[in-house]
Order: sequence, then structure tokens, then C-alpha cells
Amino acid sequence: LSTEISFKTIGVIHSPLSQKLAVPRQGRLAPSLKAEIEFHSPWNESVWLEDCQGMSHLWVITYLHQHKAKNLKPKIRPPRLGGNKSISVFASRSPERPNPIGMTLVDVIEIDLLRGRILIANHDFVDGTPVLDIKPYHPSADSAQGEINLGWIETVEHEHFEVQSSEKIEAAFDSCSRQAIEELLRFDITPRYHQVGREYWFKYESFDIGIQKKRPRVFEVFEIKKIEMI
Amino acid sequence: LSTEISFKTIGVIHSPLSQKLAVPRQGRLAPSLKAEIEFHSPWNESVWLEDCQGMSHLWVITYLHQHKAKNLKPKIRPPRLGGNKSISVFASRSPERPNPIGMTLVDVIEIDLLRGRILIANHDFVDGTPVLDIKPYHPSADSAQGEINLGWIETVEHEHFEVQSSEKIEAAFDSCSRQAIEELLRFDITPRYHQVGREYWFKYESFDIGIQKKRPRVFEVFEIKKIEMI
Repeated sequence: LSTEISFKTIGVIHSPLSQKLAVPRQGRLAPSLKAEIEFHSPWNESVWLEDCQGMSHLWVITYLHQHKAKNLKPKIRPPRLGGNKSISVFASRSPERPNPIGMTLVDVIEIDLLRGRILIANHDFVDGTPVLDIKPYHPSADSAQGEINLGWIETVEHEHFEVQSSEKIEAAFDSCSRQAIEELLRFDITPRYHQVGREYWFKYESFDIGIQKKRPRVFEVFEIKKIEMI
Repeated sequence: LSTEISFKTIGVIHSPLSQKLAVPRQGRLAPSLKAEIEFHSPWNESVWLEDCQGMSHLWVITYLHQHKAKNLKPKIRPPRLGGNKSISVFASRSPERPNPIGMTLVDVIEIDLLRGRILIANHDFVDGTPVLDIKPYHPSADSAQGEINLGWIETVEHEHFEVQSSEKIEAAFDSCSRQAIEELLRFDITPRYHQVGREYWFKYESFDIGIQKKRPRVFEVFEIKKIEMI
């Protein structure tokens, strides 16, 4: 019988992406996209983290807090399948699952023992994501060898988008953020069944970025607005 | 600030290993070691699982129920380092961590949609482990490319043990279980600082298996006893 298990958040993610739109569909799609893990007390003390130094990668186990399981369905429609094919939840990485636990392999940029923070990149985190655990990467335990069959995932291809009007991005952002934004827009960040011509806005740090799906595989950045803090 | 998050168990593991002793220290060390995931209702209905068919591997996210965090220490002594070096909890895969969540990449043997069960192998589960989530394996998201630094893990080597008296194993078990037991005993299942000569007992299915550390890298199986059910 199903029973309840409770965990405590050990930290929180600070990500430039504060909305689900534009967040990569999984880790390792946007190498320049940075974020910071802030550990809560007492786990922000250096003794909990210091032996992570020298590790180039870490697993981050998160609570996918924007996906509380109400009216959960046993099948989801993966955006990468165009939204018209249903897949069993346990055969997918969808955040809409009985226990919204995420696992992402991230790049470690810097471990700040003094502040109890880890600067990471190559992630898929929305700002404010609670962290449940950090684990070292262990290729021999975490990789399959020999014959690997991925089922329906095998047939999925990422469509790469061309990004236009990147001079608007250049004016507003430093080269690091610019690269991260261009990496995000290489993928279709919109539901695939949405029509060409439609406009979308997403937030990156303190900017609203307006994009338009110009042609099937082309995004144009048509406006960047600084969000005014009140 | 740290907050509580609660999850529900979606299933339970039936493993031949009912005690921590002899359970592999991680997944992918005992390819012949089988187990069964039994899903609880409603997740035992085929619609939740059917698209896992054709997948050779799955991630199993578990609650490491034998490790309730009392008097948790920020550093642990990994057995593979001989028990005399301390490592930060978040730099280790130790089950003794703030949130005892496990993640293991397992081999899929068979998906039984009718009974809502998945037969797996190559695991590190003790019998009765509660399951929180099942996710498909996605090599491009789950593997690091390029330069990989593993920190202290890099320096660790598995010592392989020789197993003696395997005719006792042959008499009690079929070839599948025999192979699993020999795979388990290839590793030092005892704390490394324990002396040569000491005897240990572990349970496998309904048998008590007595082993002795004969020499530094030799286990002798000296007795196998059927456990009498009362």
C-alpha cells in the first residue's frame, strides 16, 4: 500500500529563468545556462560540501514545485512528439508525475564553500526550484553499457531553430547570457502545434524577451524589455 | 528556509537480499541480481507503464528506508576507502544523507503489464525498499561528455574477491541465483577494516549464507542453511 514519505528541502536554485517557458526540456541542452544552488542551514556549512571540490559534474535532485499532481493523467503528450502522441508517465521525463522529483546532471562551475553555494551550468531549472539532494556523478553506475534500447525516445529528434535579430540580444546582455539565450532558442520552446507567426514572451534575469516563430524553424527576437522593479 | 515536502510511495521492491549486508554498494555491480518492482494501485494499471516496453534500462528512484536520518553527520567514511577517510555527504552516494533518496540505473528483464510489475536486474536494492519514481534512461541527458573529473571517486578501486566452496552454492541454488551470489561476493561485502578470519551471515531468498574472509581477498562460503518459516 502507498504510504507518505516526507523530505526537507536542503536548498534552492537561483536560475535566470523564472517561468517554465524557455526552460530546457532536460539537462545538457544549454551548456552556457548558469544557475546557483543556495544551500539552507546547516547544509551551507563547508563540511557538507568540501569534498565535491574537483568534481566536474553533479546530480541535482529537485522537487518540481510547479507541478503539483492534481488530476494527474497516466499518459502525457511529450512536446517533442508534436503533442499528438500519448506516452505513459513512467516512460517519460515529464514533470507531471505522481511524485514530481527531478534529477539533472549539471556541470559544476564553482563551489563557494564560504557562502555554501554551488555555481552550475547546463541545467533545466526554473528559478526557485527546491533542492532535495546532491550526489556525485559516477559514470560506471550511471551509464548503461552494451546494448541499449530507449523505446519511444529513440525516435525523437531535436529540431534545431535558427535565431534571428541577435543584435537585440547583444545590446542587452553580456556574452555569457547571450550565449545561454541563443542556446535556449535553438530548441522549440513553444508547444509544437502552435502556429507560425505567434508571439511569445519569456523572462531571463530582469528582462522580458519577445520572440516570434517566423517560419517553422526560425525564431525572431523582436523585443527585449527591462522589467521595472516596483 | 528548509520546508517539508511529502511524496507517496508508488511501489515496493522485492529483492532476494533482505538485509543490508551483501547488498551491492551501487547499481551495475551485480548484473545477475534480480528483483521485482511491484506497483501499488493505481500505478499498477498498464496505462502507466506500457510505453516502458522496449526500454532496456530504467532509473528507479527509491526511499532508502533503512537509513532514517538520526544524528546525521556531515561526513561519512566510505567503506571503499577502508573506513579511515571522511568524505562530505554530498560528495558521496552514502544512504546516510539528509534526504535518503536513492537513484539506480537498472536493467529491464520483463515488464508484466497484467500484474503491474517490472522484473529488473543489476540493482542495489534491499527487500522492501519503497519506490518513489521510475524514469526512462536518456543517455544524452544522463551522461557527461568531454572532460570529466570525479574528485575523490577517481582514486577508488574495487578490490575483487575470489569465491571458494562454490559447490555449496551449486547444491542450493539454480544457475541464475548462483551467478548473482558469486557476483555479490566478488566485492568486499564486509567493512574493510574487519579482520581476516571473521565470519558473516547474509540472507539470500530463503537461505542463510555463511561466509568467512579467509585471506585478504578470498571469501569462503562455509555454510548454506535453509531458513525455516514458522
